[in-house]
Amino acid sequence: MTPRILIWNENVHERTNELVRGLYPQGIHGALREALLARGFADVATVTLQDPEHGLTEARLAATDVLVWWGHKAHGEVSDAAVERVALRVWQGMGLIVLHSGHFSKIFKRLMGTPCALKWREAGEIERLWCLNPGHPIAAGLPPYIEIPQEEMYGEPFSVPEPLETLFISWFAGGEVFRSGMTWLRGAGRIFYFRPGHEAYPTYHNAHVQQVIANAARWAFNPAPAWVDVTAAPNVPAEAAPSPLKAQGARLHGDGEQGYR
Amino acid sequence: MTPRILIWNENVHERTNELVRGLYPQGIHGALREALLARGFADVATVTLQDPEHGLTEARLAATDVLVWWGHKAHGEVSDAAVERVALRVWQGMGLIVLHSGHFSKIFKRLMGTPCALKWREAGEIERLWCLNPGHPIAAGLPPYIEIPQEEMYGEPFSVPEPLETLFISWFAGGEVFRSGMTWLRGAGRIFYFRPGHEAYPTYHNAHVQQVIANAARWAFNPAPAWVDVTAAPNVPAEAAPSPLKAQGARLHGDGEQGYR
Amino acid sequence: MTPRILIWNENVHERTNELVRGLYPQGIHGALREALLARGFADVATVTLQDPEHGLTEARLAATDVLVWWGHKAHGEVSDAAVERVALRVWQGMGLIVLHSGHFSKIFKRLMGTPCALKWREAGEIERLWCLNPGHPIAAGLPPYIEIPQEEMYGEPFSVPEPLETLFISWFAGGEVFRSGMTWLRGAGRIFYFRPGHEAYPTYHNAHVQQVIANAARWAFNPAPAWVDVTAAPNVPAEAAPSPLKAQGARLHGDGEQGYR
Amino acid sequence: MTPRILIWNENVHERTNELVRGLYPQGIHGALREALLARGFADVATVTLQDPEHGLTEARLAATDVLVWWGHKAHGEVSDAAVERVALRVWQGMGLIVLHSGHFSKIFKRLMGTPCALKWREAGEIERLWCLNPGHPIAAGLPPYIEIPQEEMYGEPFSVPEPLETLFISWFAGGEVFRSGMTWLRGAGRIFYFRPGHEAYPTYHNAHVQQVIANAARWAFNPAPAWVDVTAAPNVPAEAAPSPLKAQGARLHGDGEQGYR
Repeated sequence: MTPRILIWNENVHERTNELVRGLYPQGIHGALREALLARGFADVATVTLQDPEHGLTEARLAATDVLVWWGHKAHGEVSDAAVERVALRVWQGMGLIVLHSGHFSKIFKRLMGTPCALKWREAGEIERLWCLNPGHPIAAGLPPYIEIPQEEMYGEPFSVPEPLETLFISWFAGGEVFRSGMTWLRGAGRIFYFRPGHEAYPTYHNAHVQQVIANAARWAFNPAPAWVDVTAAPNVPAEAAPSPLKAQGARLHGDGEQGYR
Repeated sequence: MTPRILIWNENVHERTNELVRGLYPQGIHGALREALLARGFADVATVTLQDPEHGLTEARLAATDVLVWWGHKAHGEVSDAAVERVALRVWQGMGLIVLHSGHFSKIFKRLMGTPCALKWREAGEIERLWCLNPGHPIAAGLPPYIEIPQEEMYGEPFSVPEPLETLFISWFAGGEVFRSGMTWLRGAGRIFYFRPGHEAYPTYHNAHVQQVIANAARWAFNPAPAWVDVTAAPNVPAEAAPSPLKAQGARLHGDGEQGYR
Repeated sequence: MTPRILIWNENVHERTNELVRGLYPQGIHGALREALLARGFADVATVTLQDPEHGLTEARLAATDVLVWWGHKAHGEVSDAAVERVALRVWQGMGLIVLHSGHFSKIFKRLMGTPCALKWREAGEIERLWCLNPGHPIAAGLPPYIEIPQEEMYGEPFSVPEPLETLFISWFAGGEVFRSGMTWLRGAGRIFYFRPGHEAYPTYHNAHVQQVIANAARWAFNPAPAWVDVTAAPNVPAEAAPSPLKAQGARLHGDGEQGYR
Repeated sequence: MTPRILIWNENVHERTNELVRGLYPQGIHGALREALLARGFADVATVTLQDPEHGLTEARLAATDVLVWWGHKAHGEVSDAAVERVALRVWQGMGLIVLHSGHFSKIFKRLMGTPCALKWREAGEIERLWCLNPGHPIAAGLPPYIEIPQEEMYGEPFSVPEPLETLFISWFAGGEVFRSGMTWLRGAGRIFYFRPGHEAYPTYHNAHVQQVIANAARWAFNPAPAWVDVTAAPNVPAEAAPSPLKAQGARLHGDGEQGYR
């Protein structure tokens, strides 16, 4: 079964900044798509903020197994309705890979329930990402650490909920550290955050970085049928209980009433 | 150090429904306050939805160590601004105890990042809450299980993130089960969800139920100073790095600029 | 890639007890193998306690992707050396599925680091296993709950470390509950404990129970290369550090010395 | 309520190595005791490997709320019986703080169920411990990072189970990183691992390091009554079930029999 990948990119700096356009002439989404196609994914589409409904229609999301997210300057322009559609699909089982500055995206903050804040510095310093579990599927084919010659620094504390797994920790030449690869489960959806990828550097052309993203796309793919009614709060009448009951005692709700939300 | 407890109650059914008023003539908040005072807490205040800013002003929250939350019919009437104020204080270190139908409160959903949905039935059936960790502070002084003669049923799946700890699981006469006591950490704040307490039954007069809530209030109290800047995303200039650097490479941000949010 | 499954069974009651032999004429391992073959697994082998080295040789384990474990009466007859070999392979990435009374097996206790104790009753009562995450791969193809007409009761508290995920909770007619399906990660290995399967009942002929075990075998399969040196504690000399150093200060260890264990 | 602290030290290098004796003339246990007394603990005792039963008698452990553990060269000399006594008390609710080279102690490996291996280098390099949760009780009173001018390097991967919380991550001048402060729960016991403290350096005279250990001792203290029967596996006869049953179906066990272990 081939995971259907959708790459979402805000696609702002690539259009407005000469430097970024030079690094990613087809956009960051284009570069990521190439990397995934080259690593054996057959079904990789891209959409951007500029598309109708940001390309995140209900139909498109229903046909997506893993969504990759890159955003930075335009987090605030993503509509709340789109964010809710993505969140629903994650709970139902869609994988989500959030890259770099996506730590402050609406969708990531929505799913984490925390500020997702961190320290930062744009000084083109060396970053080393150490792998904490060399036998993890997301680490397959990697060396003990990935060295990136120039990157933006992100420093702890990173205010996210404790993850399922901490897979990568970054060392920065300036002296800080950062949990650069973490996983979470939310509903039936698998979430992976991966730090590298400041748009001022050619990070997404790094083969190891590409490998992590490809590995993560496979890991985040949930082959099970979607949990379609994950938001439902059904009433189970006494006579339909697994061990049928005779209702007794006081009641606030009439037969067939919905609960309060 | 005495934890400063604040009990928040929507206080609707107690004013509009004869049955509920009969059970809780001073409101559910009043009954909970009595129970905490009787168990050695010295500083227990109450506020309700009807108070200005729902009683959840910045000053009041800053002076609160543990917030207890009961709501059901009026979740939608709680302002988003109040919810954000509470969330911020939880991340900073305030404890939060969410009771029963509070599973659908805005603040609980905000902090969980998931639907928080479940099955339900109002049939006055027996509930037994089994304790999974008899040595946990929240379980101190309890029997192996708490039996409540009449309660509303809540059934799995309960769509919350995997908890830090599952402390109680309920057995219902009608055949369902439910994770009735769970803990989470969010930022520096400790969160406890506790299931019992449908307002049509005298559950909060049950001594064991009161004991759990009192134990949880002690457990949720974080004695450490607040993490006041939990939402800050400071820039660390190259010259101020722990290992001072000379900035190099391309840059998108000018000196002293804020990052994008 | 086809996971290589190995089913381990102590195979005692099937040989010594008429009742159990009648239910499982080819042994519980034989019944489980049939169930996995019928669900699309192509490479399913079985070994038993009576085999040389209990069938758990280094070579056999190196060629196993997922190990399924059933034991009850003869936990103490499994050699410590075999247990250590299995533990090493789990840390390296082999999946492990522990069934029913395997909660007290040496290998499960070894990997959990806790007593793994529980309450029990052999009264042929109804068990209902509720699924907590209908979108999880281990729950694929299942109804909201699995009802088993006669099973042994296991009751909480079950003294295991908090799991990665609680996937099933059982309701018993006698009034107890139990976390019947839980997952853990240890090193690169995925572990699933599944409660049903008392040898006095035909539980492993139940299609839903078989489905869970087959789903779990797929989930526990780690396709990544083994973490072969998971137990190594290498010295990294100063001159070989990622940022080469000049060693300074006092030293206890001479060049090339091993650390203490 | 005053936690009763017990510091355990193997006390080998302090007696056999001039350098270490010079740094810790009263032993590492003596230095740690002084630090805890100076931070408000009133009941702090010490024992060493050389004491009868290593000072870890059943009576002594029963009277201990939090055990602090330092060992390095003599892990193998600690008796398995003592390790089991300590493990039992942790499951029952005793806190455990494992320091530095204690990562390879028998008791830590016993409770983790994993190899607990890591990389290392003794080069007297700078270590910076970044705090990931400034509002956590274990971080109270600390700066954003602790800088230790000379320490042994420990590098990832550190093969432990995913922790409850990652509280400190170390940056080393040579380029490695390490999760230097982590918490786990096992049974009713709280466990904290803290990395610094190579005996060739004066690390335990560092006020911030002392502060972390003192904070951790408070955090690890479980005020609840001990879970005394954490290893018990009681039978619950049908007639004594919460919802009394009539036993039916086949049985392997006679009335009153113990289960198999």
